[in-house]
Amino acid sequence: MISKKMKASLASSSVIREMFEEGNRLAEIYGAENVFDFSIGNPNVKPPERVKTAIKEILDEEDANFVHGYMSNSGYPDVREAIAQDLNKKHGLNLSFKNIAMSVGAGGGLIVVFKTLLDPGDEVITFAPYFGPYRAYIDDCQSKLVIAESHKGTFEPDLATLEAAITPKTKALIINNPNNPTGVVYKEDIIKGIADLLTKKSEEYGHTIYIVSDDPYREIVYDDIEVPYMLNYYTSTFAVYSYSKSLSLPGERIGYVAFSPEIEEAEEIEQCLSNATRNIGFTNAPSLFQRVIVKCLDETVEVDVYKRNRDLLYNHLLSLGFESAKPEGAFYLFAKSLIEDDKEFVKIAKKYNLLLVPGSTFGCPGYFRASYCISYDKIERSLAAWTKLANELNK
Amino acid sequence: MISKKMKASLASSSVIREMFEEGNRLAEIYGAENVFDFSIGNPNVKPPERVKTAIKEILDEEDANFVHGYMSNSGYPDVREAIAQDLNKKHGLNLSFKNIAMSVGAGGGLIVVFKTLLDPGDEVITFAPYFGPYRAYIDDCQSKLVIAESHKGTFEPDLATLEAAITPKTKALIINNPNNPTGVVYKEDIIKGIADLLTKKSEEYGHTIYIVSDDPYREIVYDDIEVPYMLNYYTSTFAVYSYSKSLSLPGERIGYVAFSPEIEEAEEIEQCLSNATRNIGFTNAPSLFQRVIVKCLDETVEVDVYKRNRDLLYNHLLSLGFESAKPEGAFYLFAKSLIEDDKEFVKIAKKYNLLLVPGSTFGCPGYFRASYCISYDKIERSLAAWTKLANELNK
Repeated sequence: MISKKMKASLASSSVIREMFEEGNRLAEIYGAENVFDFSIGNPNVKPPERVKTAIKEILDEEDANFVHGYMSNSGYPDVREAIAQDLNKKHGLNLSFKNIAMSVGAGGGLIVVFKTLLDPGDEVITFAPYFGPYRAYIDDCQSKLVIAESHKGTFEPDLATLEAAITPKTKALIINNPNNPTGVVYKEDIIKGIADLLTKKSEEYGHTIYIVSDDPYREIVYDDIEVPYMLNYYTSTFAVYSYSKSLSLPGERIGYVAFSPEIEEAEEIEQCLSNATRNIGFTNAPSLFQRVIVKCLDETVEVDVYKRNRDLLYNHLLSLGFESAKPEGAFYLFAKSLIEDDKEFVKIAKKYNLLLVPGSTFGCPGYFRASYCISYDKIERSLAAWTKLANELNK
Repeated sequence: MISKKMKASLASSSVIREMFEEGNRLAEIYGAENVFDFSIGNPNVKPPERVKTAIKEILDEEDANFVHGYMSNSGYPDVREAIAQDLNKKHGLNLSFKNIAMSVGAGGGLIVVFKTLLDPGDEVITFAPYFGPYRAYIDDCQSKLVIAESHKGTFEPDLATLEAAITPKTKALIINNPNNPTGVVYKEDIIKGIADLLTKKSEEYGHTIYIVSDDPYREIVYDDIEVPYMLNYYTSTFAVYSYSKSLSLPGERIGYVAFSPEIEEAEEIEQCLSNATRNIGFTNAPSLFQRVIVKCLDETVEVDVYKRNRDLLYNHLLSLGFESAKPEGAFYLFAKSLIEDDKEFVKIAKKYNLLLVPGSTFGCPGYFRASYCISYDKIERSLAAWTKLANELNK
């Protein structure tokens, strides 16, 4: 007698998470050191030392009821203001605390934005391959996720399929840059192209099509590549951020939503984000970590660790005949599975204790994702397993 | 062009929270010491010292990527197991980690349970007066909140109105014990009466009617009063807990859902709670605080502080002619407003810098709620304001 809707959703429940549980199971059998778990984006690079000292400072210096207490649903005003000023400094914007709503990670930020924007029957577009939970978030708003395509190979957005996907019901487009699962960074010309298209279509339909920019990997980029900040290109943007990756704090669920003071109905949006935070049970983003991140605004994990990992894995896979766009950010590699059936491929890989996620999980069959946010040493030890896998399938 | 649904919800948005914001505004004008903010349940009693030492121990002794990292959506298995064992010890139960899902506070726990149970059109009953956000949580599941009544005066549940409210669509009953906003504790005979009635009705309709027991005030009780633990009385119970009040950590959003191993479809329920945690963007309960509470399972804030507050406020209000059930737990007092219109009453009280919440917010007009989780000293200083208010209205 439990929910039919939820039971149905169980059936299609996250393959990534199942693989995570499977990894734990295999680790118990073979030992954690012999399981090459490339399945989940759980950062292995240490949080900056400042996180630890900041926590201790706060505990020693601030009032405990303040640090662990309730505040406005959208967060401590001073924390929101500090983040606004940090964004202003980094991106030349003009935000105040009113334009920042603290959120329970990027996941919490996304759903709060969708609750603010969506009515039943609305449509939200994203590009495949895409992060699986988007579908659950949109479903939870009784709205419809519509898929546009990326160019296979480069995995840059295909604007022709975007244009074709837009209907009078389109309320928003989700962009994830740097991208999970491909590791690709969308450059300025693409971002401008998307902004121009949505501006044109918004005028054509007489209502705004919003951009929801899912930015948790913003700082995880290599080779000094520039990631355009969406708020500088399109006013009707919600920029959703999380400190999960930049500070290696994914379990703490701390992030925010930023929007432009020039957005239509700015004041109502501020209220709606706050209201949504309460209405779906978050109440507020965790309080101690709100105060911690303000002391860590200039901190980032050592991104070079991920770059070394990428080089090691990417070069080895290419030498084995795998085809993949070179990841420019995040810590994912998205390659063609050596056989057409990506689920079967992932099953075969498991024989070699390689845990991967099939591309179909991201709406892109025929590929797989490998998360290389594990130790360099372990990637090195996995190379023989990759070779064996390729040898079996390249016969 | 933002959501019509959300805009409509804004209109009826939380009066408690508005009062909280209003309190901040008045504090800036008159000074915080001169504003008597009885509006919100933000505990003023310090968290136990063990919370602070536990955090420091964890930071110094455990691996930072483990402490701040992802885990299963339902939480760290060792944390869940420790909580299960603690409940077994305290309540003579037989739970394991499988019966515990860590949640983002009680709010997060409630919505995860509702997503697990409810399909569109289902009905959930609660007794008025009731905690306002229940309505938002049920709405978010496209289900309907149905109100049964409490006996005015004692504010104990009225089982006749409960029986009349049950229909074939009833999926669950929410019980909040000790109760917010009345401070009343439901004794064993009432709990047994509710359990018997729901057992009978479940049989009659051929499907289970669940109890969702919202228990964040379980430890905040006075005079050695016993709070029956619902899992001991009704198998189809979800016991939703938060450490917000017992450890004074409301901002940290840490709690859990417990259910019996004998509940129907126990294994699917475990999966659904986990799935719901992911699907609505929580991902997991904050990781550091999961590890902290395991070290604080035997800790509670000094409940006597609240008892002293209750005695001071309750006795003064009774001496002024207010009518109220004597609060036996939580930190709320629910009294008849001196005039029929409770919203007007609250407005008049504000003239004396007394911030209260009208009973109509809890589905019970003609009353008001005063949260006495503020300093004894401030309550003492507020007494003159209460006297002036009573003098004005008792004329």
